Amino acid sequence: MSQFWSPLVHSLTPYVPGEQPKVSNLIKLNTNENPYGPSPRVLSALQAESNDALRLYPDPNASELKAAIAKYYHVDINTVFVGNGSDEVLAHTFAGLLKQDKPLLFPDITYSFYPVYCGLYDIEAENIPLNDRFEIDFDGYHENNGGIIFPNPNAPTGQLSSLPEIEKLLQKNTHSVVVVDEAYIDFGGQTAIPLVEKYPNLLVIQTFSKSRSLAGLRVGFAIGQAPLIEGLERIKNSFNSYPLNRFSIRGAVSALEDQAYFEQCCTKILTTRDKLTSQLSDLGFEVLPSAANFVFAKHKERDAAELAQILREKAIIVRHFKQERIQDFLRITIGTDEECQALVDVLQASFTRD
Amino acid sequence: MSQFWSPLVHSLTPYVPGEQPKVSNLIKLNTNENPYGPSPRVLSALQAESNDALRLYPDPNASELKAAIAKYYHVDINTVFVGNGSDEVLAHTFAGLLKQDKPLLFPDITYSFYPVYCGLYDIEAENIPLNDRFEIDFDGYHENNGGIIFPNPNAPTGQLSSLPEIEKLLQKNTHSVVVVDEAYIDFGGQTAIPLVEKYPNLLVIQTFSKSRSLAGLRVGFAIGQAPLIEGLERIKNSFNSYPLNRFSIRGAVSALEDQAYFEQCCTKILTTRDKLTSQLSDLGFEVLPSAANFVFAKHKERDAAELAQILREKAIIVRHFKQERIQDFLRITIGTDEECQALVDVLQASFTRD
Repeated sequence: MSQFWSPLVHSLTPYVPGEQPKVSNLIKLNTNENPYGPSPRVLSALQAESNDALRLYPDPNASELKAAIAKYYHVDINTVFVGNGSDEVLAHTFAGLLKQDKPLLFPDITYSFYPVYCGLYDIEAENIPLNDRFEIDFDGYHENNGGIIFPNPNAPTGQLSSLPEIEKLLQKNTHSVVVVDEAYIDFGGQTAIPLVEKYPNLLVIQTFSKSRSLAGLRVGFAIGQAPLIEGLERIKNSFNSYPLNRFSIRGAVSALEDQAYFEQCCTKILTTRDKLTSQLSDLGFEVLPSAANFVFAKHKERDAAELAQILREKAIIVRHFKQERIQDFLRITIGTDEECQALVDVLQASFTRD
Repeated sequence: MSQFWSPLVHSLTPYVPGEQPKVSNLIKLNTNENPYGPSPRVLSALQAESNDALRLYPDPNASELKAAIAKYYHVDINTVFVGNGSDEVLAHTFAGLLKQDKPLLFPDITYSFYPVYCGLYDIEAENIPLNDRFEIDFDGYHENNGGIIFPNPNAPTGQLSSLPEIEKLLQKNTHSVVVVDEAYIDFGGQTAIPLVEKYPNLLVIQTFSKSRSLAGLRVGFAIGQAPLIEGLERIKNSFNSYPLNRFSIRGAVSALEDQAYFEQCCTKILTTRDKLTSQLSDLGFEVLPSAANFVFAKHKERDAAELAQILREKAIIVRHFKQERIQDFLRITIGTDEECQALVDVLQASFTRD
């Protein structure tokens, strides 16, 4: 506390990111990182980027990256916005598009940064409960709103909403912005990007942190019709002219060029997810159907916090949220086959011992 | 314009950064970049950073970088804040410390991002005119303020305020935050960091973009007493958990370790600045005394915009601001000796021709 803080600072409840422990030899299944490193092509491109040109500012518009994203998704370059991780893209979206007189609607169980942005920008939020199967219930998204945002698949549940459901929402809700936050879409979902040309109020946000194995680089982007993107650019250019450094631009461009590697990593993760889901079910877990690189699982008898602790003692970290409705669940990132097997082994041993 | 913008977006006047032309073979003296690349030690450290660990998030707290800065400036680690370029550090400072009921004071001629931040965060600004010699006139900084910010040396004038003057201001102004924005301090100024332990309302902001040759990496930092830093952390953690990517952290840490290279580059730039100042004076320019890696110069007869155009036709880019009081000046970044000589030659030829 300080007399020198602005009134805003006193009112904030900052986001708490998943732990990034500094010790090695951990099995880190707590922040949904990709167990496989970036494409070798990305690593060489990044190595080459370490040169004297670092004395110069990056392109403030990151045009090369925007062009690569536009080409990849077959959209116009002026429908692409990029930022320092999808968290920064989200922040600018809250400030530039979702701060309205009416409340912003999002699920009661969702990415826990959304209420934090609402605090930062003084946006009134209304939580719409997931249904009993922990799915997004679009019927609850009434029209008295200043915007709608939800992840697809949702986090931390991993559950996917279908494109027809999303399109039905867009047909009903034409007066405010609808943001589909697709951080995990590449793990089995279908992107809403093709709907952008039909719906001027749709913004789709994605990241290079998960399926592209580049969490350490911090690159996110949004695709929406040009006027929405122009709104985001106006905020960005009032905040930081050069949010992406030279490595971020180069690495992300390069990642989009290695489609084979990308598909191979995603396929491996999906295979491991199926196997882990079945093993956890055998151990007495209820596992929500996941379209993400994590599973959300609840044991029929055992306390989730206690299980997280047992795993931690064996150097395996998963995430547990002390939040109503989900305090019995663990969110487990899909690691390599070996990492997931180690987790299953520790759980199995603990169940046998009791 | 879009019906989907928040009211804020309509009201913004975004910052316009200096041009980053995509053609090569230009002599680029328009955005105050260092003419010398980063230390070879930095380049190798960055090369080694291109590895599989990029799949993992960076340390959200960038502790290693904070520790390195703390060690370098002999301050405690909890007095250090880091961000994605000093522009992001400034943005969070405006939101977290300078947004108050009373107006924020800054010079009429100064870094043109300050009024943009005021627009973004709805902060009332009051401009205090520089004196006739284009120096900051601290007597004008009255006590009816919610904060004070100025660059030292000032931009785009390059003029330095002395530490005793700054301390006098701090003695007088104890009720609100005073920010000294030291982007160019390493080119001949004396940092106010040692005053931090005496003044709980002092925040000093610096960058790795200029004297450390890392504009392409985007790293800035602030030093202030722990409660001020905590205020900034609360804003940062409500905006983006991981603003610095793995390369930014590694490169900045490494830059602080090569003091000899740093001093050598700064010395070369100071020598070139002296030479250029004297050559410009000989050509009929009035050159303000500069403590930065640029000079601010006005020709006694010739129109500044016209001179900028003559230089541009010869592939030399400098910066001209169409702003009252300074529209007769050119801001010229100190390049290598060869680059500055090329500029002098073009100007000289144009004067001879007339």
